[in-house]
Amino acid sequence: MPEKLDGATRLFPIIGDPIKFVKSPQQLTRGFEKRDYNGLCVPMQVANGDLAPVMQALTLTGNVDGLLVTMPHKFAAFAYCATRSETARLLGCVSVMRRNADGSWHGDMLDGLAFVKAQTDQGAQVKDGRALLVGAGAAGSAIAIALLNAGVRELIIHDADASRSTRLKDLISDAGHASVNVGPADPAGCTLVFNATPMGLAESDPLPVSAALLDSSMFVGDVIAGHGVTPLLKAAQSAGCKTANGVQMVDAVQEMMLDFLRG
Amino acid sequence: MPEKLDGATRLFPIIGDPIKFVKSPQQLTRGFEKRDYNGLCVPMQVANGDLAPVMQALTLTGNVDGLLVTMPHKFAAFAYCATRSETARLLGCVSVMRRNADGSWHGDMLDGLAFVKAQTDQGAQVKDGRALLVGAGAAGSAIAIALLNAGVRELIIHDADASRSTRLKDLISDAGHASVNVGPADPAGCTLVFNATPMGLAESDPLPVSAALLDSSMFVGDVIAGHGVTPLLKAAQSAGCKTANGVQMVDAVQEMMLDFLRG
Repeated sequence: MPEKLDGATRLFPIIGDPIKFVKSPQQLTRGFEKRDYNGLCVPMQVANGDLAPVMQALTLTGNVDGLLVTMPHKFAAFAYCATRSETARLLGCVSVMRRNADGSWHGDMLDGLAFVKAQTDQGAQVKDGRALLVGAGAAGSAIAIALLNAGVRELIIHDADASRSTRLKDLISDAGHASVNVGPADPAGCTLVFNATPMGLAESDPLPVSAALLDSSMFVGDVIAGHGVTPLLKAAQSAGCKTANGVQMVDAVQEMMLDFLRG
Repeated sequence: MPEKLDGATRLFPIIGDPIKFVKSPQQLTRGFEKRDYNGLCVPMQVANGDLAPVMQALTLTGNVDGLLVTMPHKFAAFAYCATRSETARLLGCVSVMRRNADGSWHGDMLDGLAFVKAQTDQGAQVKDGRALLVGAGAAGSAIAIALLNAGVRELIIHDADASRSTRLKDLISDAGHASVNVGPADPAGCTLVFNATPMGLAESDPLPVSAALLDSSMFVGDVIAGHGVTPLLKAAQSAGCKTANGVQMVDAVQEMMLDFLRG
């Protein structure tokens, strides 16, 4: 039994598909309990294309106070937010939503912040660092903005699709005071090496950064969660690097989500 | 923390307005846990008129396996059921819904059964009894059908609105082999006396049956839950009657709901 679960429980559904591997129902609910708050995070499996009726219903449901949004809905959910954080606005997507006073939704995108927090929690020195970021998709874009906000001195963006790197560089060129460049997947001279691609989900994937180019002066972080130690992190640990993985990113985001949802 | 709450949790929302006093979230979830099943009953506050979009969304949500329906939605929810029990069909309303194999909904109305079970749990002899039922609305109609199914020998229906008594008598005239009649709120000769009206919600309400007409040969049951011992039950206990209250009805329905939802 939940410690607190009754007719007065406030709901914070997490919406995605697939949904059964998400950790927020247990982690966020435990966080509510620690704060002595009668809130519950419940999973809702909502297929791509079904977001509109589900958002309509959850908006009408009086005891739904917040939402967590995961794949494939992070971009589509943006449209249901009457107000958004600057990061969400830049990225055009949201990971969390809470009610405004009038019942409308305020959205924020916490994934990048969570990733950076996981790195610093594991010992990375992000401020004034020189970072190579591989992957300029949704995750990479969120991480890039968070890195700039955290004070990296230089950011090199690489994506196998060069147009994505360039688009991200253009997107964030006004967002910070760092030097932002598009470049190869070469970490030479970098203190921070981050993977924001799906490479590593399959054992047969090539490494996002060649193992031979890693050395112990680099901190290596990976967005991939739930697949054990990825080949990139294995190679990094062999090279003597400190590392952070996607599970630590998921852990790091919980407190942020609690603060946001109860904010 | 719920013992079981994660991304794989199956949801069984209870839909109503107001919702904060319902007991099913804790009771049904405890029942799922006892059966070692990863299911959770969560409250959803859905106003009258908002059922359609909420039903659409919950139907689309892959891990919603069942629904509990309470006021004011019991009649409106009937329309969303592709298949229904005979009792639900007769009454035109449902209290519980579960998925058919094709994802559509099967509805049943368990309130009457729950009421009758509460009476027998508290010692009433329903089979072959002679019952006075005061109140021929939704609750009274459900109870009348359940009493016939449980084998009462004679049923006298009273409602302040005589057209409702007559309508209920006509509705159930084919549903059992008992003698069914419309009559005054006089329990003389009855072994069972049941209140299915809202009288007793307010302390100033008149009794549904005059206290002077009760004697210790009668078993007296009341649908009203959550308002302590109602004036009718106080009078009945003073007269030496055995009694059952609405809370016992709510308790009685939990196992039925579990059987139905996991059936």
